[in-house]
Amino acid sequence: MADKKYNIAVVGATGAVGQEMIQILLERNFPINNIKLLASERSAGKKLEFNGEQIEVDKLGNDSFNNIDIALFSAGSSRSKQFAPIAVESGALVIDNSSAYRMDSDVPLVIPEINAERIKDHKRGIIANPNCTTAVTVMALKPLHDISRIKRVIASSYQAVSGAGAQAIEELSNQTIAWSKSEELKINTFPHQIAFNLLPHIDSFLDNGYTKEEMKLHNETRKILEDQSLQVTATTVRVPVFRAHSVSVNIETEREISINDAKSAINSFPGVRVVDDPKSFKYPMPIDATGKDDCLVGRIRKDYTIDNGLCLWVVGDQLRKGAALNAVQIAELYVNKNGK
Amino acid sequence: MADKKYNIAVVGATGAVGQEMIQILLERNFPINNIKLLASERSAGKKLEFNGEQIEVDKLGNDSFNNIDIALFSAGSSRSKQFAPIAVESGALVIDNSSAYRMDSDVPLVIPEINAERIKDHKRGIIANPNCTTAVTVMALKPLHDISRIKRVIASSYQAVSGAGAQAIEELSNQTIAWSKSEELKINTFPHQIAFNLLPHIDSFLDNGYTKEEMKLHNETRKILEDQSLQVTATTVRVPVFRAHSVSVNIETEREISINDAKSAINSFPGVRVVDDPKSFKYPMPIDATGKDDCLVGRIRKDYTIDNGLCLWVVGDQLRKGAALNAVQIAELYVNKNGK
Repeated sequence: MADKKYNIAVVGATGAVGQEMIQILLERNFPINNIKLLASERSAGKKLEFNGEQIEVDKLGNDSFNNIDIALFSAGSSRSKQFAPIAVESGALVIDNSSAYRMDSDVPLVIPEINAERIKDHKRGIIANPNCTTAVTVMALKPLHDISRIKRVIASSYQAVSGAGAQAIEELSNQTIAWSKSEELKINTFPHQIAFNLLPHIDSFLDNGYTKEEMKLHNETRKILEDQSLQVTATTVRVPVFRAHSVSVNIETEREISINDAKSAINSFPGVRVVDDPKSFKYPMPIDATGKDDCLVGRIRKDYTIDNGLCLWVVGDQLRKGAALNAVQIAELYVNKNGK
Repeated sequence: MADKKYNIAVVGATGAVGQEMIQILLERNFPINNIKLLASERSAGKKLEFNGEQIEVDKLGNDSFNNIDIALFSAGSSRSKQFAPIAVESGALVIDNSSAYRMDSDVPLVIPEINAERIKDHKRGIIANPNCTTAVTVMALKPLHDISRIKRVIASSYQAVSGAGAQAIEELSNQTIAWSKSEELKINTFPHQIAFNLLPHIDSFLDNGYTKEEMKLHNETRKILEDQSLQVTATTVRVPVFRAHSVSVNIETEREISINDAKSAINSFPGVRVVDDPKSFKYPMPIDATGKDDCLVGRIRKDYTIDNGLCLWVVGDQLRKGAALNAVQIAELYVNKNGK
């Protein structure tokens, strides 16, 4: 069974995350028998390259999942809500990158380096992939949480436009080019200009004044770390960066964690590493994290305003660890478990 | 004496802050008899417009301050250290935008809306203008601190390139244009590419892992608010924005402050106002604060992770309230006091 190959569907194949999923499946030699690329009517008929072949994108529909073993969903919450149950019914395991099922108690929310053992709990045939900013942040939190429980996190994010999809990447690009030619900047995807600007607004606003994105950091971090007493307050901000997310993180732990212990714990943890030699101008930056699998952690220092506080600066590729890579890693876990 | 006019020197006249000072002196009808524009040898001889006249920039030297009443310095710490005492010796009041004298106990650190009465304490003939990020942040903190003492501030900044001077503005512009033409991005002013990137690095690094900029937020906030028990921990980050600074601020107060009380206190305070209707996409943004005198505060909400916590998002023009405007406001205070 070790060389079993799988029929894979990628839902949202023409999107920024979908395209990254296709690339990562190839890069990591995922055991694929057949790949089916699915998208909404608007994108159906387009052709995408896979391993040198041109594959036509099919329209997502009720009969899309016949003979599919694993369906990777990244086409937004409403499509996941509509089609994930159909995919499961057809016999596929669903790995869902939307927020639709993340907080469902019968759906595991998995970062393979952190809680791989949870994948067995997929009672509904669905495994959820975390929010991108949460995934990047939790990769830095987990090794520290293992030294001493984290009680409180105050996070301010600096999120790349890739998190808002392929059109958002194009919008930053188009606005930049228009600015360079002294032309008018056109606004389509974001509610305001994003080039040379900041939007303290990601996802929609809730009655408590936070955005859904900010509450995801609270809720998903607690679920992934399996600690319902951990508290996270976040401010999430869109910045004119293409594809890596950065987070300024302040944590309070139960016991003191030394800087050295923090650094060794992070460096010993898979998928995350320390870049922290600021006097030599070495610290995590979006341009260095772009296209990389590892999340980068730097600016690690004591917060002198409380007893057991640390400040960190975490950067990770939104499309990779923040989305497509983590989803493919979940698929690998599932396949390895199945194949053995 | 009410219509006395003053001989003004602007030191660092060709810099981003210097040019803004000149413009604001004019805009606000500062009672000027004569203006002297001073800069380093490199910029001497250039001509700058002032009220329709072309004025030649003089080389800064020991004899630059004869007959000067007020010298506005914005040419970096080392020039302030060298020439401010000479200006004072020549009989001028120095208003210094550098960090050279800010923490000197004989030098008041003034934001006119907050601690105007301190200007009388200029025992050395020098009044210091605060750090730009501190000025913007403290404008939001003061009205809240007046309701209930702020115990702890956790700040993450999103600082425009203007804070690094005219060359830094040009660098973002040049890198953007180069990117648009698919040309190589040249790096001169910052240690790394700033276009589409973030640098968690402003000013130099100290042994405690913080930057000088981050410690300014701690030290200067305490001095301006005259509260040495207030604690500030900051992470300061350069972002590809031209000239307004933004700060994600989390505060813990002694007693609870309601959202309504926070908003009315901020709106009742001069120089700062609430922009906080996020469901209608209204929140402070750098493009809206650019060129404006007021600092903008939004995203005001309870931090549910502690008893008396608030989150805020503050944006202010780095060159105006963060530098030149505040310096000219100090000069106005001095002149009004002198003229009466």
